[in-house]
Amino acid sequence: MTKIQAPKIGIIIGSRSDLPVIEKAEKQLKEFGIAYDVTSASAHRTPKNVENYAKTAEQKYDLIIAAAGMAAALPGAVAAHTTLPVIGIPIHSKGLGGHDALFSIVQMPPGVPVATVAIDGARNAAVLAAQILALKYPQLKAKLKKFKAKLAHA
Amino acid sequence: MTKIQAPKIGIIIGSRSDLPVIEKAEKQLKEFGIAYDVTSASAHRTPKNVENYAKTAEQKYDLIIAAAGMAAALPGAVAAHTTLPVIGIPIHSKGLGGHDALFSIVQMPPGVPVATVAIDGARNAAVLAAQILALKYPQLKAKLKKFKAKLAHA
Amino acid sequence: MTKIQAPKIGIIIGSRSDLPVIEKAEKQLKEFGIAYDVTSASAHRTPKNVENYAKTAEQKYDLIIAAAGMAAALPGAVAAHTTLPVIGIPIHSKGLGGHDALFSIVQMPPGVPVATVAIDGARNAAVLAAQILALKYPQLKAKLKKFKAKLAHA
Amino acid sequence: MTKIQAPKIGIIIGSRSDLPVIEKAEKQLKEFGIAYDVTSASAHRTPKNVENYAKTAEQKYDLIIAAAGMAAALPGAVAAHTTLPVIGIPIHSKGLGGHDALFSIVQMPPGVPVATVAIDGARNAAVLAAQILALKYPQLKAKLKKFKAKLAHA
Amino acid sequence: MTKIQAPKIGIIIGSRSDLPVIEKAEKQLKEFGIAYDVTSASAHRTPKNVENYAKTAEQKYDLIIAAAGMAAALPGAVAAHTTLPVIGIPIHSKGLGGHDALFSIVQMPPGVPVATVAIDGARNAAVLAAQILALKYPQLKAKLKKFKAKLAHA
Amino acid sequence: MTKIQAPKIGIIIGSRSDLPVIEKAEKQLKEFGIAYDVTSASAHRTPKNVENYAKTAEQKYDLIIAAAGMAAALPGAVAAHTTLPVIGIPIHSKGLGGHDALFSIVQMPPGVPVATVAIDGARNAAVLAAQILALKYPQLKAKLKKFKAKLAHA
Amino acid sequence: MTKIQAPKIGIIIGSRSDLPVIEKAEKQLKEFGIAYDVTSASAHRTPKNVENYAKTAEQKYDLIIAAAGMAAALPGAVAAHTTLPVIGIPIHSKGLGGHDALFSIVQMPPGVPVATVAIDGARNAAVLAAQILALKYPQLKAKLKKFKAKLAHA
Amino acid sequence: MTKIQAPKIGIIIGSRSDLPVIEKAEKQLKEFGIAYDVTSASAHRTPKNVENYAKTAEQKYDLIIAAAGMAAALPGAVAAHTTLPVIGIPIHSKGLGGHDALFSIVQMPPGVPVATVAIDGARNAAVLAAQILALKYPQLKAKLKKFKAKLAHA
Repeated sequence: MTKIQAPKIGIIIGSRSDLPVIEKAEKQLKEFGIAYDVTSASAHRTPKNVENYAKTAEQKYDLIIAAAGMAAALPGAVAAHTTLPVIGIPIHSKGLGGHDALFSIVQMPPGVPVATVAIDGARNAAVLAAQILALKYPQLKAKLKKFKAKLAHA
Repeated sequence: MTKIQAPKIGIIIGSRSDLPVIEKAEKQLKEFGIAYDVTSASAHRTPKNVENYAKTAEQKYDLIIAAAGMAAALPGAVAAHTTLPVIGIPIHSKGLGGHDALFSIVQMPPGVPVATVAIDGARNAAVLAAQILALKYPQLKAKLKKFKAKLAHA
Repeated sequence: MTKIQAPKIGIIIGSRSDLPVIEKAEKQLKEFGIAYDVTSASAHRTPKNVENYAKTAEQKYDLIIAAAGMAAALPGAVAAHTTLPVIGIPIHSKGLGGHDALFSIVQMPPGVPVATVAIDGARNAAVLAAQILALKYPQLKAKLKKFKAKLAHA
Repeated sequence: MTKIQAPKIGIIIGSRSDLPVIEKAEKQLKEFGIAYDVTSASAHRTPKNVENYAKTAEQKYDLIIAAAGMAAALPGAVAAHTTLPVIGIPIHSKGLGGHDALFSIVQMPPGVPVATVAIDGARNAAVLAAQILALKYPQLKAKLKKFKAKLAHA
Repeated sequence: MTKIQAPKIGIIIGSRSDLPVIEKAEKQLKEFGIAYDVTSASAHRTPKNVENYAKTAEQKYDLIIAAAGMAAALPGAVAAHTTLPVIGIPIHSKGLGGHDALFSIVQMPPGVPVATVAIDGARNAAVLAAQILALKYPQLKAKLKKFKAKLAHA
Repeated sequence: MTKIQAPKIGIIIGSRSDLPVIEKAEKQLKEFGIAYDVTSASAHRTPKNVENYAKTAEQKYDLIIAAAGMAAALPGAVAAHTTLPVIGIPIHSKGLGGHDALFSIVQMPPGVPVATVAIDGARNAAVLAAQILALKYPQLKAKLKKFKAKLAHA
Repeated sequence: MTKIQAPKIGIIIGSRSDLPVIEKAEKQLKEFGIAYDVTSASAHRTPKNVENYAKTAEQKYDLIIAAAGMAAALPGAVAAHTTLPVIGIPIHSKGLGGHDALFSIVQMPPGVPVATVAIDGARNAAVLAAQILALKYPQLKAKLKKFKAKLAHA
Repeated sequence: MTKIQAPKIGIIIGSRSDLPVIEKAEKQLKEFGIAYDVTSASAHRTPKNVENYAKTAEQKYDLIIAAAGMAAALPGAVAAHTTLPVIGIPIHSKGLGGHDALFSIVQMPPGVPVATVAIDGARNAAVLAAQILALKYPQLKAKLKKFKAKLAHA
């Protein structure tokens, strides 16, 4: 069982070129004071890294955010190897405009869910992460309420 | 702050006619031993009920599962009034085959996420719920691991 | 019952950043000499504001124009709280190119309609508004006929 | 200018075979006590009938409900010849599942709007019609409020 | 019956702003030595002009090319009033990227066809026109064969 | 140059299993008194037959109607080898519901058009064929006018 | 390096319930005299099995056929762990009608291709497999030529 | 039977303007040391060239890569005339964003498969080609393993 005392999130992307997509997630997590680290590993090019990442995730993270485009197997590949909640961010791309990534991430088979947010919805991935972590870390609850109040005045 | 000692989930559907859609979620939650209740309230026909449900949800629930079809505003309407995690199930319907419900649920604006699962993905809504609740209720962790092991032998 | 003597329309948008979308509606309403005001309130970030707006709309407006993108719940959220006619404008966005907003606005459940116009169809929202108001304010009828005649020579 | 004393709606369909689609609109209009008649005329097969219908509509109707499938030109063809509000109902069909009718009805060019409701959304066409007519016939306002209250208890 | 001695085509567009779309049709018709004229009339803004155009088309034209975007009713509206062949060009637009115009033009109801070419396929509209006219004007046959031979060496 | 004295149409389908799709075309051609024959040849399984069919078509036919589903290359493959007008009928199939056949037939490259009608629009293929042939065979003009008049009373 | 003397194919499906989908592939492989076995393993429920299957595939198979529906990660997950050619069959399902499986299988990232065939295109997966294996096993070439000749007479 | 001693691939594109699309395929093939040549021939404009190319391909090539946009008949037209494996690359274009090319290439009828890769997926076409050729040319196996190892460190 996890020994984590403070909330910690693992963000995983398929390629360093996806870093700009998750910037808003990082910014939002910082605002919530939630620690995170970012790993680049590909479900198709470095599946072993993804597997190892997912299998050891429980020792390090409370939950995982995974962003991917096109066939977008990464969130599901992580979910396959962990019972931590996995939040998936479909990344917009030319061609099919994100339909491909959205369908690939959200249409998971029974037993292995991915909590999917909007196309390029990195900020919401962070907010959803905070909502989930607040179940375990009560101090986040207050931050979320402040955040929600601030939203109302943005 | 919530005083809940045992995990408790609120399931909300827009209409009694959606009950068959969530049967698999109910069955799965029972298997995990997670308590839940089912409420029928519509974001468009009984918005006040939805609002009251969402606003008082924190006293009763750890998280909310909301299922809806077509314009499918219910999950987002619940999310608007709570900082609990909200899991959304898009319901398949004729006409646009679930494209409408999926897009209406997953494409939430920044600040108010809905954790979207597959079209008619009620069972996964329950599994995702258990994964999230396991952060707070350690006894669920073991059940999830058994569940995952059993999946592998189904 | 409303005491309004001159036609008055409420335009509501989810965010100040949507102002450019409704400019053509404003221009057209001015041409028809129809008074309006613009409110920014979000179905997801400030649902209470939307509710209050919709519930008091009858004292102030003859009808409401609501524009929204992505999950686009705003028009339906307004319609949920009023019996005034609500005209919905789906806003184009990257990702799904407006499919999401269109489906979210037009696919309303039985009992709570939104009169949907084209993606980014702000000008037509204003024309439709004038056509509706002309039922009550006969002076608009003549303006509409002139407008239609002018269309034919544009 | 119209001399109509009681609310009156014209429903137009492209073919007698579309009658089942509008049954829910008829039932709802009867509940509201709104008179209507049903005309069958096709924008493509009997365009002159549609034109005559639309041009004389003002003497007979307060607004028009037009239902059509596939290329679904009927609502727009009616709107082209009148300044009355026109409500369009896209009819589901095999092949493209209603995408075709929806796009053909909602994507009207600037100047000639059609108030589009959901695919096969005949009941909502009637409710929208009542909301619009209530601007002119105050007695409908009370009926709509009762209807909305009843919706909340369905 | 038509008295036309040399091939003559009517090109109709919904608005002067569509002129660039048909440039390639014009260029190709000139290469084939086929006379044409271009008319701007809108199925929705100037339906009477479209009707008159279509009804008198037989005295002037052998066939008609109609280009339109969005709800794209123009080709069908012309076809409704003539038994001449009508070729339809769906025009690409933002929002739905031409899906709307394509579906609106191609999905015509039984009895009133429109010969639809590719989105923005103006050049092919002209080639198809020449192929059709060659049935009546044998001199075009040779030109088409040369054209086809040249295509093979482009 | 063709020596055909009476109108003659070649109908080509990719497989005998597509015969039911073209029944309405056959019925309509018979009503117009237009001779036709039906050939089964596949652009992918018997391309040489398609090529021979298309290359000799001018001696036998005034125009060709080609129906195909899925990748639906047949109409284009015929058009590649003839300068006769080719009318394409996209056939509905499960999976992508006719989107695939429609896109494959209508999106032809510059120089080689296919006159596309609605998904499963066999009757309209026949009507379009008659409209085209009427340019060459004046007796068809009267039949088309009667047909159009009858349409108006159906 | 593989020691395989006779062609051998591995077919993998995500679940026993997909067996009917691959029946046509089995029948076709038998006709070609190509040995195969069928394995059921899920990219999401039994990823380790998929990994082991893929990693040891080279000792047993010349190529792999993988069929999957919805998020359809299986073909890509196999491809991630082998340099054997992987043929992917998207399986049709309700909801999104196969769009989801098709996009999830075909839109693979650079470096890890899946050779995708039509939705439910199991027979073609077998034919493609035979075409590929014929490069290594010359006896298959003659069978393919006979098959192609027979196709032409079906 | 082919006499080829070293791997050789034929790349075919519909038009010289598609050359940039296949650059990544060329670069990748060079990295693998696989010889190739590029031919431009159109299934619709120069079908005879495509046929000749495909029919003689066996003497020259081990497999064929075909790239095409819009109706994208080229890969299937090649596959119709050869039993070599054909890899198809759907090319993105405006209008339908590659949906058209993807559906036209992947939805091949039973008996004549095309191994389809992602929209604009030229690099993967080359990788898939190498995977297929490795069955015949063992030296490629080692290169593919190095390539896969390098992918993992990119």
